[in-house]
Amino acid sequence: MTKQEIIENIKRKRSFLCIGLDTDIQKIPPHLLKEEDPVFAFNKAIIDSTSKYCVAYKPNLAFYESMGVAGMIAFEKTVAYIRTHFPDQFIIADAKRGDIGNTSELYARSFFEHAKVDAVTVAPYMGEDSVKPFLTYNGWVILLALTSNKGSQDFQLTEDAAGVRLFEKVLIKSKEWASDEKMMYVVGATQGKMFLEIRKYVPNHFLLVPGVGAQGGSLEIVCRYGMNDQCGLLVNSSRAIIFADPSDTFAGTAACEARKIQTEMECYFQYTNLK
Amino acid sequence: MTKQEIIENIKRKRSFLCIGLDTDIQKIPPHLLKEEDPVFAFNKAIIDSTSKYCVAYKPNLAFYESMGVAGMIAFEKTVAYIRTHFPDQFIIADAKRGDIGNTSELYARSFFEHAKVDAVTVAPYMGEDSVKPFLTYNGWVILLALTSNKGSQDFQLTEDAAGVRLFEKVLIKSKEWASDEKMMYVVGATQGKMFLEIRKYVPNHFLLVPGVGAQGGSLEIVCRYGMNDQCGLLVNSSRAIIFADPSDTFAGTAACEARKIQTEMECYFQYTNLK
Repeated sequence: MTKQEIIENIKRKRSFLCIGLDTDIQKIPPHLLKEEDPVFAFNKAIIDSTSKYCVAYKPNLAFYESMGVAGMIAFEKTVAYIRTHFPDQFIIADAKRGDIGNTSELYARSFFEHAKVDAVTVAPYMGEDSVKPFLTYNGWVILLALTSNKGSQDFQLTEDAAGVRLFEKVLIKSKEWASDEKMMYVVGATQGKMFLEIRKYVPNHFLLVPGVGAQGGSLEIVCRYGMNDQCGLLVNSSRAIIFADPSDTFAGTAACEARKIQTEMECYFQYTNLK
Repeated sequence: MTKQEIIENIKRKRSFLCIGLDTDIQKIPPHLLKEEDPVFAFNKAIIDSTSKYCVAYKPNLAFYESMGVAGMIAFEKTVAYIRTHFPDQFIIADAKRGDIGNTSELYARSFFEHAKVDAVTVAPYMGEDSVKPFLTYNGWVILLALTSNKGSQDFQLTEDAAGVRLFEKVLIKSKEWASDEKMMYVVGATQGKMFLEIRKYVPNHFLLVPGVGAQGGSLEIVCRYGMNDQCGLLVNSSRAIIFADPSDTFAGTAACEARKIQTEMECYFQYTNLK
């Protein structure tokens, strides 16, 4: 999916919501455990009920891998289901991979050719040759820059002798590797005014923003400081939508929660030039 | 497996070789493609022929994930096979994971409880709460410090205002999270004299050293600068052993290559106090 197509979807749906399919089998409604593939059954119901309010889905691989082979089958079925029934959704494999060149190449092949997602999250610690193999495919790299968790302060904020912080260095370097048509950045919703700092380096890039909802980030602040003319944000919520209701009405409740966020998002279109 | 058990195995086998099971289905001998599970058949033959020369096996998850569900089955079967038939081998899942706390917890559960490996490689970029969940299990974290690839220079060598480089900061901080009975570090064989710098911070820790062989690192230099009194090294070779011979004599050739390295390793026991 091209950047322009993402923007068109955001305009049409009045939403830049990404729903995180962090499907923990220990948290899904018990009646689904009778299904042949409970995780896929849960995801399918969530997707069917929420797709009109969002423009992207983001399964985090950890939740699928923790169930071994059965989990990977559920992951692949979920991606294929979205691809077939909701082709306007942007699909992000949240995997945070990164390895030496020939190994990253295999991860890239896995996600883009085998699973056929639109984007993969990648960790920058190992540098250019760990990221570049992902860029040779027809898809997006979403590079970790400034994450939403407490540990983001341990290394990402370290200043070099010239006062450049590690996350800034990641932005500066990685802009040499790919344009805003191929790369996005992860910036946590908990980072507040730091979005202003981020936008100095990457004014035109899309940012993938986790941490609204269960992690406590404010959507209003993210939009105020992080939006650009063409929106430039995909804001993710996972647990606060998909696990809002532990009963058999979970899908309807998830739709309500997604719609609430979409409604709030509509207000913030005033910060953009999108008509 | 405890640190002391690893050391005992090294003493007994006169080897600190780790063999990387980076099994690319496109590179295995063609006659194996007739097998029901070609990747497992290849791994089993490699393990049977090489186990006496090594103390650890390290499957890199990328190679298994790139084949989707079939690959994950091959991974799980490989780990179970080593566990059952060669219980003195240390099994490392080379996965380079790292995510926010509740997600890292799931990766940890996946590798330690489901796949039952001894150790997982973890990326430090997201800081303490991305690493700690792995430490709550009965197993090892092997944290990326200074990797073997060219891109290691992009961020890992960045100096802060006090002249402390990022990989040094990773060593300093992470020593607060776990002892040398729970944590090891990845240091690339291509880093040469940098091992002296590493040892200033972690004199007693084991280091997992990839990059000997196909990547060009020198075993002699790694041992000269990286060994400690109790060895303190697990040196990995992957392609140079497992893909040394593309024909149906691959397993015998892999054994020869592993034995060559083990023989060279015996010479370097002079740098240790192991009897």
